[in-house]
Amino acid sequence: MAERSLVFPAEEYRGRVARLQAGMAAAGLGALLLTAPADVFYVTGFLTRFWESPARPWFLLVPASGSPVAVMPSIGAELMGRTWIGEILTWDAPDPEDDGVSLLAETLAAMVPERGRIGLPMGLETHLRMPVRDFRELERRLAPRAFADATACVQRVREIKSEAEIAKIRASCAIAGRAFARVPEIAGAGRPLDAVFRGFQRLLLEEGADWVAYLAGGAGPYGYGDVISPAGPQPLVRGDVLMLDTGAVREGHFCDFDRNFSIGPASDLARQTHAALWEATEECLQALRPGMLARDVHGMLCAGLRRRGAEPGGGRLGHGLGLSLTEWPSFAPKDATPLRPGMVLTLEPGAVLRPGCIMVHEENIVLRAQGAELLSPRAPADLPEIA
Amino acid sequence: MAERSLVFPAEEYRGRVARLQAGMAAAGLGALLLTAPADVFYVTGFLTRFWESPARPWFLLVPASGSPVAVMPSIGAELMGRTWIGEILTWDAPDPEDDGVSLLAETLAAMVPERGRIGLPMGLETHLRMPVRDFRELERRLAPRAFADATACVQRVREIKSEAEIAKIRASCAIAGRAFARVPEIAGAGRPLDAVFRGFQRLLLEEGADWVAYLAGGAGPYGYGDVISPAGPQPLVRGDVLMLDTGAVREGHFCDFDRNFSIGPASDLARQTHAALWEATEECLQALRPGMLARDVHGMLCAGLRRRGAEPGGGRLGHGLGLSLTEWPSFAPKDATPLRPGMVLTLEPGAVLRPGCIMVHEENIVLRAQGAELLSPRAPADLPEIA
Repeated sequence: MAERSLVFPAEEYRGRVARLQAGMAAAGLGALLLTAPADVFYVTGFLTRFWESPARPWFLLVPASGSPVAVMPSIGAELMGRTWIGEILTWDAPDPEDDGVSLLAETLAAMVPERGRIGLPMGLETHLRMPVRDFRELERRLAPRAFADATACVQRVREIKSEAEIAKIRASCAIAGRAFARVPEIAGAGRPLDAVFRGFQRLLLEEGADWVAYLAGGAGPYGYGDVISPAGPQPLVRGDVLMLDTGAVREGHFCDFDRNFSIGPASDLARQTHAALWEATEECLQALRPGMLARDVHGMLCAGLRRRGAEPGGGRLGHGLGLSLTEWPSFAPKDATPLRPGMVLTLEPGAVLRPGCIMVHEENIVLRAQGAELLSPRAPADLPEIA
Repeated sequence: MAERSLVFPAEEYRGRVARLQAGMAAAGLGALLLTAPADVFYVTGFLTRFWESPARPWFLLVPASGSPVAVMPSIGAELMGRTWIGEILTWDAPDPEDDGVSLLAETLAAMVPERGRIGLPMGLETHLRMPVRDFRELERRLAPRAFADATACVQRVREIKSEAEIAKIRASCAIAGRAFARVPEIAGAGRPLDAVFRGFQRLLLEEGADWVAYLAGGAGPYGYGDVISPAGPQPLVRGDVLMLDTGAVREGHFCDFDRNFSIGPASDLARQTHAALWEATEECLQALRPGMLARDVHGMLCAGLRRRGAEPGGGRLGHGLGLSLTEWPSFAPKDATPLRPGMVLTLEPGAVLRPGCIMVHEENIVLRAQGAELLSPRAPADLPEIA
């Protein structure tokens, strides 16, 4: 177990902390308080599925200089002790009288001067993973120290992936790619959709996923109603377009892409829509460059679809990816995040076939100085048919 | 898909809302704001793995009287439209300028009078799944309306499971029970632990799990270091105690129990510890009654272990279960929650074999007026051996 709890050498984490601290210095922050699974994993390498239990909060503090401090339930001390983190303060959680608040307040008070500011991600795509009541008490105890929004401070660092991170995400993409190649083993006319979902998760595990954090999809003759539904028991029928979209995890790193399949011969509309999605993606893969804004990619994909007679649909048309299924930015009309080399992103154009019926196509890439480099094995240009 | 998105008939959900509203009336709440996956699922039947994406908040409002209102990203409207919820207000998320805050504030302002109070779970084992920045803005816009802690209001209702819910949890337990019975197919000396974890997830899927939300475990000659670790590549060796602990999900309902196995003949200490854990659990199964407090169960399990020469360890010794891997209360020294008929609970005694080495045993039960009724197939009294 010891070898796997530290996903990267300690040097990787030290570099991350140095980059966070540079941002903290620029923002005038005396400490950073992190509570979200991906943020804690990013700094520490602490990898567990125990986040699935909402019972306990976990706190990771990054001081203005020096090493991070974990303030956490004692049940995790053994596992955190196998990471590079040296200072681990624990309490027995859940404690209805004081669920780590005193320990956290004391630790922060010693770290940050009275007129100092404590950074906390408070913005878009963040949550505070601790009870609101406890956060209010923490604010009261730490006053006059104030909490300040550290969303940008964290996101500008995390969004640039190291080569080591990129290699891990590429490995997760390869696992899903091999599983998608085997979909004809588990899908076909007459197979219930929920059995297909179970079978696909089995394929992902066989191909090397540590676990399958996400699987959604749908099936219908003109695409599917949405891209977030679990499966029902209805059998696939000839003429259906089947879509599977997975976030498989290997060593804590996600892929997130989908594939479409036709059950028997596809309708002309489904084939044409798949071609439009594939070609709009291809165009974007060629054109993507650092310096573009996130919303430019949205515009590019929409224009590419419309030129091919397809109507864009399905929400944002891509997003960041890495330590969680989705990360910022969003390929959406209002997102002005500049794209930079080292960002790992999904291109996810969707198109409306009929009212309430869409098809979505997705690839994962890393942005390089010279343009996009695929991490997912490229989907076939023609909608594949399962006999 | 339609059939599966509403797990129960609408009548089940109407009863839940009526019980929540009774508690809200007693607490003087004009509305309830829910943001957590299990709370939203409880009221609506909205079942999706899309919660894995931290990008978007989802809001469910329960008014003082009348039907709930969903305020949510448009990407989920199709799926929510297949539940019993009639009023679904949407925005295109994530929106960096206004990620649903205006829509939510307007809806709450129309629902709650100016001097009214809005209930929000803020206490132990809760999180607010929306950005802190947006919550602060929401508070500002809704003033003089105030937010009040609704943790007890929600927990006292959710913790009493209906017969329909109990049947679903029992089904998840049965799936895990069948998978545990097949562990000899996938585990044995020389098999890497991570391959065993993958194999066990495959068994859970084959036995009917929709997905495997949680798997942890460990292996060692005197037990394992903790119960939250992912697997590493080290092979099992003769004399190891292997433990697998799973939260498998069927139709949105969890089981949460573990099983221990000896790889080849077990040491005397491991066999004796397993026997002590099994017998302390058996004693508790016989003695458990409504009216006891959560901390009484902790005391009972500790005493049962000590009488058999085992030292209690491993954190809380059980907890609630149902719509998430863990629910309140905690079988821990300070938890004074009264046990009531209809509660679904885990009994999870742990014992220390050597410094840093524990064994944990777990069963799932429903508490009836006359005592505990097992939901998990009872573990064998003797530590099972895999040849």
